[in-house]
Amino acid sequence: MSKKITILGAGLVGSLLAILLQKRGYQVTVLERRPDMRKLTYSAGKSINLAMSMRGWAGLELAGLRKEIEEIAIPMYGRQIHPISGEPVFQAYGKHEEAIYSVSRGELNRKLMTLAEACGVDIRFEQRVTDVDLPTNTISIEDGDKTLSHSDHDVVMAADGAFSALRNAYLRRDRFSYSQLYIEHGYKELCIPAGPNGEFLLDKQALHIWPRRNFMLIALPNTDATFTCTLFLPFEGEHSFENLKTPEAAKSFFETQFPDALALMPTFLEDFFGNPTSSLVIVKCFPWVYQDKNMLIGDAAHAIVPFYGQGMNCGFEDCNVLMSILDNNPDADWTGILAQYQEARKRNGDAVADLAMLNFVEMRDKVADPEFLRRKQIEKELGLLYPAFFNSVYEMVSFSHTSYHVALHCQKAQDELLGKILAAGDFSANLLREDFKKDLDAWMQAYGEKVKEVA
Amino acid sequence: MSKKITILGAGLVGSLLAILLQKRGYQVTVLERRPDMRKLTYSAGKSINLAMSMRGWAGLELAGLRKEIEEIAIPMYGRQIHPISGEPVFQAYGKHEEAIYSVSRGELNRKLMTLAEACGVDIRFEQRVTDVDLPTNTISIEDGDKTLSHSDHDVVMAADGAFSALRNAYLRRDRFSYSQLYIEHGYKELCIPAGPNGEFLLDKQALHIWPRRNFMLIALPNTDATFTCTLFLPFEGEHSFENLKTPEAAKSFFETQFPDALALMPTFLEDFFGNPTSSLVIVKCFPWVYQDKNMLIGDAAHAIVPFYGQGMNCGFEDCNVLMSILDNNPDADWTGILAQYQEARKRNGDAVADLAMLNFVEMRDKVADPEFLRRKQIEKELGLLYPAFFNSVYEMVSFSHTSYHVALHCQKAQDELLGKILAAGDFSANLLREDFKKDLDAWMQAYGEKVKEVA
Repeated sequence: MSKKITILGAGLVGSLLAILLQKRGYQVTVLERRPDMRKLTYSAGKSINLAMSMRGWAGLELAGLRKEIEEIAIPMYGRQIHPISGEPVFQAYGKHEEAIYSVSRGELNRKLMTLAEACGVDIRFEQRVTDVDLPTNTISIEDGDKTLSHSDHDVVMAADGAFSALRNAYLRRDRFSYSQLYIEHGYKELCIPAGPNGEFLLDKQALHIWPRRNFMLIALPNTDATFTCTLFLPFEGEHSFENLKTPEAAKSFFETQFPDALALMPTFLEDFFGNPTSSLVIVKCFPWVYQDKNMLIGDAAHAIVPFYGQGMNCGFEDCNVLMSILDNNPDADWTGILAQYQEARKRNGDAVADLAMLNFVEMRDKVADPEFLRRKQIEKELGLLYPAFFNSVYEMVSFSHTSYHVALHCQKAQDELLGKILAAGDFSANLLREDFKKDLDAWMQAYGEKVKEVA
Repeated sequence: MSKKITILGAGLVGSLLAILLQKRGYQVTVLERRPDMRKLTYSAGKSINLAMSMRGWAGLELAGLRKEIEEIAIPMYGRQIHPISGEPVFQAYGKHEEAIYSVSRGELNRKLMTLAEACGVDIRFEQRVTDVDLPTNTISIEDGDKTLSHSDHDVVMAADGAFSALRNAYLRRDRFSYSQLYIEHGYKELCIPAGPNGEFLLDKQALHIWPRRNFMLIALPNTDATFTCTLFLPFEGEHSFENLKTPEAAKSFFETQFPDALALMPTFLEDFFGNPTSSLVIVKCFPWVYQDKNMLIGDAAHAIVPFYGQGMNCGFEDCNVLMSILDNNPDADWTGILAQYQEARKRNGDAVADLAMLNFVEMRDKVADPEFLRRKQIEKELGLLYPAFFNSVYEMVSFSHTSYHVALHCQKAQDELLGKILAAGDFSANLLREDFKKDLDAWMQAYGEKVKEVA
């Protein structure tokens, strides 16, 4: 049985993967490009908060970390929508008070690293991997002027993120399909501090959104009663970062678009001009694995935009699925294991990328639309009327283990179903009519057939 | 005025571009990875013949090479469709005996290089470019064990094909969107020799197709009375290269699928197992240019599949468009010139990639469908009835200078128009009815409006 595994990257996915493998008896080495973040003060200014949901919790559960993280996680039960003027509106995520959880990326990462080391994992910092020779599985590492070679392993697993070194080596394989698509929007982190008595200045149990059609501001709560805010805005065009180059322009833009948020941001100008404007990339590729030698996991295999909060959740699910496959292959035939892993996850990686983009449109545009709110309400009622049968796509993604590719498929089927229901007029009134209930049963039947096709 | 230009690649596009620039007074150096092909016997086995059409001729015209190439070009007036059994069927490409021209890639490339040198271009062979430093425009060249630097130029133009070194450097730019997609099909070159008296064994004035739904064989004539055949087949699956690994399997497959072609291939087994199986990639990217420093052109900017015969034609059109922009910018503001070039060509590069894939489906599948043949006939009649107004998409692409993105847009509008006409029944009979002619006028009007929107 192969025993030695090298993981590239000690981020969230790399660290969790290291824990899970070491616990299964493998001897795991992790190569991390950056210095040990536990020895640094946390560098803010470029990290969207995590929104932990069911798949993420399942990964932590397997690592035995669930309880510890629950203590530093803040439940968000829904979206708090902030119009330009008027009162905010709350939309619950689930029909049974389900929540997604705001977690500090840095804190979670540090805890995962510490647990990995406690399990016996050897994490080596400041190891910049420059290349991987595929057939020999030899890793080249930049060390000052020298290049070191590392090949003391049976399998290499690359959890080194959206700009993976192993994936760069895959680019030289024949028939490696690859795309990196930058969306037109960038993002910038801003901050709402705690109130004078250490209190939260917005509802702490919600994810706050200021939807403005083609752009938006969001805010997630932190345990210290601050909110991390993120502005998502096109790089170019009428409303764009390009047009916010002076303090006057930035301030006037926020005064017009986000007056209530601006009022809570005493360090707005310092943050806006001190923090970087970062780009957002979607990466899809195939294959994800090479023979019995190495594989991609997490963002390295499927970098996605952050709008569904599923990047880490999906990466953790990759780890869990890989563990199940390992457990079912006690003789460790790595060619078969890697092929099964790819077969199980590739279409889900593609699907979650598409779901994340769809959710961007929903967050920045649709949530402000009364028709959309009506639809959300009907979705909830359908879930109660047909509990064994109907879940909204949001619930499937965040509060279930339904495959992402099934959820994406259901999105289309639900659009069709809800289209019919909305076209028929007032849903509550219709429900009193026997003929409508018959139609509804038939529509639900047709929807169920469509879902079955793919599930 | 900037005077020195370095071109990467002495292929068809690089060589033509060198000629056109040198003629305009620039001092052009070309760096070519391979040895001088004029000093080698031509290495066969991996080159789909060229199908020169109007855009290609326009490039040669500008270089002053049109007449010389016409002498070695064989006109193909249409497709000769070979069913599994029964007689072949001829489908003309145009309504006025227009042709596309089979040209030897090697011969054309040699003539272009020789003309470039005669104009004063410095072509340097066996110069493998490994990297380009974008801000300094410095090219790294591998020379044995050493790496040389080359930066004696104002602008670098990369015509170095589907695996461009400059484009690889662009991959490290922030916000560089990029995709390389390998299609499921590969290709393999085969040969039909001349007959015993040096005669062509198939009609020489046609492009021969053996359409078999998900795969196909094609054959193009050469001046020595041979035909270059290319098999396009999936790598994996029921009918696939994977399943043709033994002489028995390959022969039996051809006996079943292409009996008439096999009968003309005395060296079938040598060719099939001696020639490589090559993959087919589609590359799209953005941006195509970097400041006033460097740019991508031809396959380096937009590698496409060969099914429309437009790869070289599009690359030559890139060159022609760039020349017009240069002629309109006598003060050579390169930032502006490169931006204009990108603006003019990017959407056309994307569109021709999509058109080429659509034409693959047409060639391997639709041409065997009687309904499709009926449609082609009606397209021709529409072109005669509305000569100032209607051209088939094939005619736009091959026999006009209509922008590719307009042609792609028209494809959808024509699908709609022809759908209506076909649904109305027998076209010739309908044309005798006044009410149908009125409908037709209205449909054509609607079609014209749609075309105008984009053109």
